[in-house]
Amino acid sequence: MNNDNMDQQRKISDAVVRRLPKYYRQLCVLQAQGVIRISSKKLGDRLEVKASQIRQDLNSFGGFGQQGYGYPVGELKDHIAQILSIDSKWKMIIVGAGNIGRALSKYTEFSEEGFEIVALFDNNEQVVGETIGLVQVHHTDGLESYVAENKVDILALAVPSQAVDHLMQMAENTGIGAVWNFTPSDVFSDSVVVENIHLTDSLMALSFRLGEKNKA
Amino acid sequence: MNNDNMDQQRKISDAVVRRLPKYYRQLCVLQAQGVIRISSKKLGDRLEVKASQIRQDLNSFGGFGQQGYGYPVGELKDHIAQILSIDSKWKMIIVGAGNIGRALSKYTEFSEEGFEIVALFDNNEQVVGETIGLVQVHHTDGLESYVAENKVDILALAVPSQAVDHLMQMAENTGIGAVWNFTPSDVFSDSVVVENIHLTDSLMALSFRLGEKNKA
Repeated sequence: MNNDNMDQQRKISDAVVRRLPKYYRQLCVLQAQGVIRISSKKLGDRLEVKASQIRQDLNSFGGFGQQGYGYPVGELKDHIAQILSIDSKWKMIIVGAGNIGRALSKYTEFSEEGFEIVALFDNNEQVVGETIGLVQVHHTDGLESYVAENKVDILALAVPSQAVDHLMQMAENTGIGAVWNFTPSDVFSDSVVVENIHLTDSLMALSFRLGEKNKA
Repeated sequence: MNNDNMDQQRKISDAVVRRLPKYYRQLCVLQAQGVIRISSKKLGDRLEVKASQIRQDLNSFGGFGQQGYGYPVGELKDHIAQILSIDSKWKMIIVGAGNIGRALSKYTEFSEEGFEIVALFDNNEQVVGETIGLVQVHHTDGLESYVAENKVDILALAVPSQAVDHLMQMAENTGIGAVWNFTPSDVFSDSVVVENIHLTDSLMALSFRLGEKNKA
């Protein structure tokens, strides 16, 4: 990728980045249905997003589609995959084999999109050695040496809050690229890309609309 | 709430609604720390959001705070809770006692924010009767009569995709207000408020930033 493209990509706002996966998923569905081209209007109707929003978002990383002809489904899907870097193969480890760790480990969708879960770690002797999804649970005693010896792009944290600081420090020291944080504590880092997951946030958005509906 | 306020609330965009929970969470932290007032600049720094964005968002539901004095932490927190209708008490049931259902059932954060999990359902005889978190697992045979006899605001779906259609139909027929959908299939409804959760979307946003970082 040349510098011009990099500069262009940097300018894509977080809001656009959050919508791209939705477009991508819908384009996958359309492609599976054999649809070749789709208009921003029809794509918007399927996603409950305004057509003008879709056109604006897709314009932000270079023009796509021709006025009146719609977007080429396969090409646009591949282009979004490239923008999102999901055409790369990322290696992910999960720390914590409780309910969330187990649920993540069994999600087959991740590997389909290029996120390969390569190992699971827990400090509970009773689950060490167990196979969950496609991977075995290792003892956390071996975590640092695993990270030193293997490529790890993403560290998923499914541990209690008190374990977070230590694991974040390890991620920063060992050069793990990203942390996907399922603990209730928000983490921030200058050197590691962090995505804090708060299920309560989506429940609050749902509560907002439920409140609106009940008042109507 | 009078009609003027209702009209005003309707105009709040989805993007703002998605940011409000983050403001709310941070205001809870600040209040616990004994902070009385906070400027949009300082709030923004803590959340990695621009101060101007915060001011614009908070203005969209009526002016708050006085120029140069910052926002009153407790008052703003309560006002956001009211906007999000999390000052209401919502009753939630979970269908599916697999890993996701179990993880949800054990999340204590939900009840702290007014979302009370009142029952869990599964069709697996082996888990019926088990207590997970604070609730017991009931057999799905009793689901419809439970919903008929009890107040249920939110139905969380943690089931395989093939069970979704039937459960959505039940939600629509019985007047359940909202569905929180953790299955891989998106659902849409005219009468029920739906929030589709896709963990892969957040992983893709993370991949985007990881890709940017690796290219830099």
